[in-house]
Amino acid sequence: MKNYDIALVGFGNVNRTLAQIIGEDQERMAAELGFTLRVTGVIDLRLGAVIAPTGVDLSALLELEPGSTFAGLEGFRELSNEEFIRTVPADIVAEATYTNPADGEPAVSHVRWALESGKSVCTTNKGPVAFAAEELTRLAGERGVHFEFEGAVMSGTPVIRLAAGPLKGVGITGFSGILNGTSNYILGRMEAGLSQMAAIEEAQDYGYAEADPTADIGGSDVRLKVMVLAHELLGVRLASSDVATEGITGITAEMIEQARAESKRWKLIGTARRDTDGVVTASVGPRLLDDDHPLSGIRAATNAVTFHTRYLGDVTIAGPGAGRVETAYALLSDLIAIDAAERR
Amino acid sequence: MKNYDIALVGFGNVNRTLAQIIGEDQERMAAELGFTLRVTGVIDLRLGAVIAPTGVDLSALLELEPGSTFAGLEGFRELSNEEFIRTVPADIVAEATYTNPADGEPAVSHVRWALESGKSVCTTNKGPVAFAAEELTRLAGERGVHFEFEGAVMSGTPVIRLAAGPLKGVGITGFSGILNGTSNYILGRMEAGLSQMAAIEEAQDYGYAEADPTADIGGSDVRLKVMVLAHELLGVRLASSDVATEGITGITAEMIEQARAESKRWKLIGTARRDTDGVVTASVGPRLLDDDHPLSGIRAATNAVTFHTRYLGDVTIAGPGAGRVETAYALLSDLIAIDAAERR
Repeated sequence: MKNYDIALVGFGNVNRTLAQIIGEDQERMAAELGFTLRVTGVIDLRLGAVIAPTGVDLSALLELEPGSTFAGLEGFRELSNEEFIRTVPADIVAEATYTNPADGEPAVSHVRWALESGKSVCTTNKGPVAFAAEELTRLAGERGVHFEFEGAVMSGTPVIRLAAGPLKGVGITGFSGILNGTSNYILGRMEAGLSQMAAIEEAQDYGYAEADPTADIGGSDVRLKVMVLAHELLGVRLASSDVATEGITGITAEMIEQARAESKRWKLIGTARRDTDGVVTASVGPRLLDDDHPLSGIRAATNAVTFHTRYLGDVTIAGPGAGRVETAYALLSDLIAIDAAERR
Repeated sequence: MKNYDIALVGFGNVNRTLAQIIGEDQERMAAELGFTLRVTGVIDLRLGAVIAPTGVDLSALLELEPGSTFAGLEGFRELSNEEFIRTVPADIVAEATYTNPADGEPAVSHVRWALESGKSVCTTNKGPVAFAAEELTRLAGERGVHFEFEGAVMSGTPVIRLAAGPLKGVGITGFSGILNGTSNYILGRMEAGLSQMAAIEEAQDYGYAEADPTADIGGSDVRLKVMVLAHELLGVRLASSDVATEGITGITAEMIEQARAESKRWKLIGTARRDTDGVVTASVGPRLLDDDHPLSGIRAATNAVTFHTRYLGDVTIAGPGAGRVETAYALLSDLIAIDAAERR
């Protein structure tokens, strides 16, 4: 049976869960998918690196005591990310580190190094797609490898691949989405009577919101996702400054109350549309939706995208937008797509 | 550029719209999809048959006076459906006739004849998939051709291909859906204060409901779709008698009113789930959903399916479930899938 050797870059919740799935569900996956996965290297900023060409001992990695590093493990190496990514013996790099919202680094460089060294890449990072989609896609093509990034938007809920595959030819003219679960959760709790401050604190207690919730409630997280989707769905490259962006900080309890009295809801919507002249206009901001709008019923931390189309009118996909297992599945779905492309 | 010759079986709203799209959007489609389509034959029970190996004059067909047949047109033939399907010079048959809910005929035979004569098939009919999916899929494989049927459920909204492609490996354990737009429209109008009788009459006036609305409001239309989805999503073949089926005729204005008072909604839900022993249980019936249920917000004639999954929890796709253009796009999406398979 076909096997792919995988290197994990970043060993936080997402790649750790992918390693668990590979360790525990291997047999079921092989039967269902027709290929196996073997982890041959792992690197993490805090933990160090291990490389094992015949397969890393995943249980040793997953059972590390809190505070321990890879230092005592077989195959431990002292390598920079670049050295690791360029030299690790792997077919595919699973990149799950972080994105600087200004330039997408270090994720962009991680992806570039992997593709340059002839490895396919799957990533859950928005940065490489938002800032360097053309360069990295062209690079992958030149090296005969693959670059997949379903998890860049809505974790494992397939938006990008739904548009590229089952919706091909439908004529997508635009999209509108609820693309940040934290802000949607906060708006929902404000509808239940909480102040915005209390709702933010609750979201932080549940782990939905970061200690600094600015990117979530200020709209910049949604803006990056709008840039990714505009490129993937509408074929245009937008700069951050092309997306007029407003967050939910201006939404007051009174505004929420008045909206409910009129059977409406405030939602933070990221959208882009191509007009009849071919010009794409994009924005992020709070919008007042009627109760019968397809995005009005999206509750709690759920995400959703409505595709506006020529032949089907509006089609909406809703599902998780975050989560450990959900985001690890995004990487698994990328690996499945890479396998399908390899078999062609 | 690659071209496919298409034969249209049935020339009602759906194939007529497909012919319009092929006639009008050919250039855009060729640029976007990388192939062209040429209609080489059309047959319809009321209109007769035309065959033209170098391409039927579509505008002549589309501009026929009401009440006229194909008798005066170039290429007119007197042929049975079987003779036409077996002999028409075409790569692909687009089947859009009708399905007898008891045995799926005549659509099942149309598909069989086409596959037996070495033609790929796309169809919007539920019957061939609900009653003969294994036989027809095996037959297509033996002849090296393709059998596609996205339009059997939710018209062009891609449910079957979303599960088979972007959601591959997610572990679908069941599904719940609003699969009949007419009954959903009627329930919505009852929430607005109409009696069921008045809501049915209104749906008939708008063309949503047939003169005999039994299949829509009695649940048998949804049952067929549950059978199709159980086969495609869960890999099990259910008989009609395996699906406990109840319609919405028992839902009264009082029940609707009480539900709204409790922030709940009655919806006609078709569902199937695999339990931990691997047994699949399926049913169709009115269910009382909380306002935060992912199917509660599906309004008017929209359809939706929620996939219950191992890695993503619930993922919902919502879109049109009927309509002339929407169903013609289902056939176009099948043609795109056949082209993709041909290129492998």
